[in-house]
Amino acid sequence: MTLFLNSPAALAEQSLAGLATLRADILRLGEGGRHIVRRTPSPGKVALVSGGGAGHEPMHCGFVGHGMLDAACQGPVFTSPTPDRVLAAAADVTGPQGALFIVKNYDGDRLNFDMAAEMASGHLRGPVRQLIVEDEAIDLSRGEAALNRRGLAGTMVVQKIVGAAAERGADLEHLVSLGSRVVGRTRTVGVAFPAPGAGEAPSDEIEFGVGIHGEPGRFRLKREAAHLIVARMVTVVLESLAPPPDARLLMVLNGFGGMPMIELQWMAGEVCQALRQATGRRTLTVARALTGNYVTCLDMAGCSLTLTLLDDMLLDLWDAPVHAHALRWGM
Amino acid sequence: MTLFLNSPAALAEQSLAGLATLRADILRLGEGGRHIVRRTPSPGKVALVSGGGAGHEPMHCGFVGHGMLDAACQGPVFTSPTPDRVLAAAADVTGPQGALFIVKNYDGDRLNFDMAAEMASGHLRGPVRQLIVEDEAIDLSRGEAALNRRGLAGTMVVQKIVGAAAERGADLEHLVSLGSRVVGRTRTVGVAFPAPGAGEAPSDEIEFGVGIHGEPGRFRLKREAAHLIVARMVTVVLESLAPPPDARLLMVLNGFGGMPMIELQWMAGEVCQALRQATGRRTLTVARALTGNYVTCLDMAGCSLTLTLLDDMLLDLWDAPVHAHALRWGM
Repeated sequence: MTLFLNSPAALAEQSLAGLATLRADILRLGEGGRHIVRRTPSPGKVALVSGGGAGHEPMHCGFVGHGMLDAACQGPVFTSPTPDRVLAAAADVTGPQGALFIVKNYDGDRLNFDMAAEMASGHLRGPVRQLIVEDEAIDLSRGEAALNRRGLAGTMVVQKIVGAAAERGADLEHLVSLGSRVVGRTRTVGVAFPAPGAGEAPSDEIEFGVGIHGEPGRFRLKREAAHLIVARMVTVVLESLAPPPDARLLMVLNGFGGMPMIELQWMAGEVCQALRQATGRRTLTVARALTGNYVTCLDMAGCSLTLTLLDDMLLDLWDAPVHAHALRWGM
Repeated sequence: MTLFLNSPAALAEQSLAGLATLRADILRLGEGGRHIVRRTPSPGKVALVSGGGAGHEPMHCGFVGHGMLDAACQGPVFTSPTPDRVLAAAADVTGPQGALFIVKNYDGDRLNFDMAAEMASGHLRGPVRQLIVEDEAIDLSRGEAALNRRGLAGTMVVQKIVGAAAERGADLEHLVSLGSRVVGRTRTVGVAFPAPGAGEAPSDEIEFGVGIHGEPGRFRLKREAAHLIVARMVTVVLESLAPPPDARLLMVLNGFGGMPMIELQWMAGEVCQALRQATGRRTLTVARALTGNYVTCLDMAGCSLTLTLLDDMLLDLWDAPVHAHALRWGM
C-alpha cells in the first residue's frame, strides 16, 4: 500500500509535516504535529474545522486555506483523530463567532468529533456546531432511521462551498443551514478494482459502491465494458439525487490514488455523455467539472463520481476564490 | 497498466476527447481528434506548441490555456505524434508572430517535430523555432557531443515560464533564448519501483534515473531507507545543476501516477530537509514548490524531483497567472 516507507504509523505524521514544509507559504503545523492551520488566519469569521484518518491525501489538510478550511486534524492511516486532537485544532482557530466541525459519516469520526464538541465548552471561545456529510448515493438502510450513507468525496464539495460562505462572513447558523443543503444535494458513488494479493492474478471483478478505506464495495460485479460501468455509476447517483429536469450539476470525478490520469480524463468525458443519455426528457447541464486525486485511499485503483445539484448561490460559492494546497483558483 | 479500458489504442484518443468535453470552458478538440487548442486564442502572440505520446496525462494537453501552451498534439500511448499531426496543431494557432515547438528530448519526438518544422514553411503563417528540453540530471554521454539527457518533468516548468513570457508578448527569438536558459537551469531525476509481473512478489529494488515510458532506470539499487533514496535524488540533481551558494530554487515533486499522495507529501518535506543538509556552506532556498501528478507514466509507482534555478525574472514568470486544466493560479 505504501512504497517508500515501511511504517504507516510514522508515515501519517511525516506526511503532514511534509505538507507543512512544502506549503509554509499558506500553512502551519499545529503543536503536537497532528493538525494543520492557516498561516494567516482570517479574523472575525466562523472557524471551519475538519479532519479524519490519514491515507486520503490531499483531504483534509490540503483543503486548509483561504476560502476553505481553517484547520484540519489527522489521525493515523484510516483511523479517526482522537477528541483531544480535534479540540487542539479547533482551539487554534476558533474565536467568538464559533466553529463548525465538518465530519464524514463514519463511526470513528462521528464518535471522536462528538466528544470533542462536548468537551468544547470551556475550551473554545465560541459555540460549536457539527455538520455531518453523508453523500454516498447507495443507502442500504432502505428508509430506516439509521444513517447508512457514508461521507465520501462529496466532503470536499461541502468544504469548498461552506468555506466560501464563511470567508464572506456568514454566521454559524447560516453555515449549518447552507451545509445541510449542500449535503442534501450531493451524491457520490465509487468503484475500484480489488488489489490482487501477492502472487494472484488481477481480478476480473470490480467493487461497486466502495468507501475510502479499502473496504469491499456494496456489490461486486463482473467486469464489463467500461462505458457500462460508467453508465451504472451515473444512474445510481442520479437516482439518489433525483435532479429536476433542467438541473445544473457540479461533477467531481475523483481518483483514489492508483487510477491512471489517462483513464480519469477518459471517464470524465464518458460521464458527461452518459449524463446526456440518461436524461430522457431532462436537459441536465454539467456547469462545473473537476477531475483529479482529491480524496484518495492510498493507491487504490479506482475512482468516485460526485454530482452536486447547483443553484445560483451554490455556483457562486463554488466559483469564489480559494487558495488551499490542493484547490486553488481566483487568487 | 490501464484499468477500465482494454484497448490502449482507443484510450489515447478517448482520453483526449474526454479532456475536451470536461474542459470545454477553456479547451477545444482539434479537427481529427489528436490535438487540443485554447478555446479563446490570445491574438498577436507567438504560438507555443508542444506534444508527445499519450500516457503522461495531464501533460501536454492539460497545459494548454492562458499563460501556457496554445496547442498540444498527442500520439498513441508512449508514441510520438506524426509530423502531419504536429503541423495540424500548429496551423490552428500560428499567426505572423510564428510558433515555438517545445520538444522533449526523445528520438521519436525529435524526429517528428523536426519533420513538422521542415514542412511548416508554406503551411504556417509565421516562422517556426524549436526548443529541446533535456532536463535529465544524469548525463551518460560524459562530455561527448551526443545529447543523452532526456526530457522529463522539467518540460512543464519550461512550458509554464516560456508560456508566461509569450502571453506578455515576447517575440520568437526572445522565447527561444529564454527557453534555452530555463532548460539549462532545470534538472530532473526519477525513481520507480519495478512493477511485479503477474504472480511475482514485489521487488526489493528501485530503478534510479527512470524516464517516463516505463523503461529501466539508469541504475538499479537495492531498496534502502527512504530518506537515503531522497538524499541520493537531491544529490544527483544538485550535482548536475551546480547552483551558486545563495540559490533560490523551484521544486517540482512529480508523481508518476501510482504513487500514493500521502508519500508524495512526505517526500516533499524530506526533499526540503535534504536540500538544507546537502548544502554545506550554501544557503539554498526553496522559493516555490509544487507537488502532484503532472507528468505521469500511466500508473507507474514512483516520482521525479525537478529543481530549477530561479532568478527574479524566472520567479516572476513562474508566478504569472495561468489557467490550464492542470495548472491554475492568479485567475
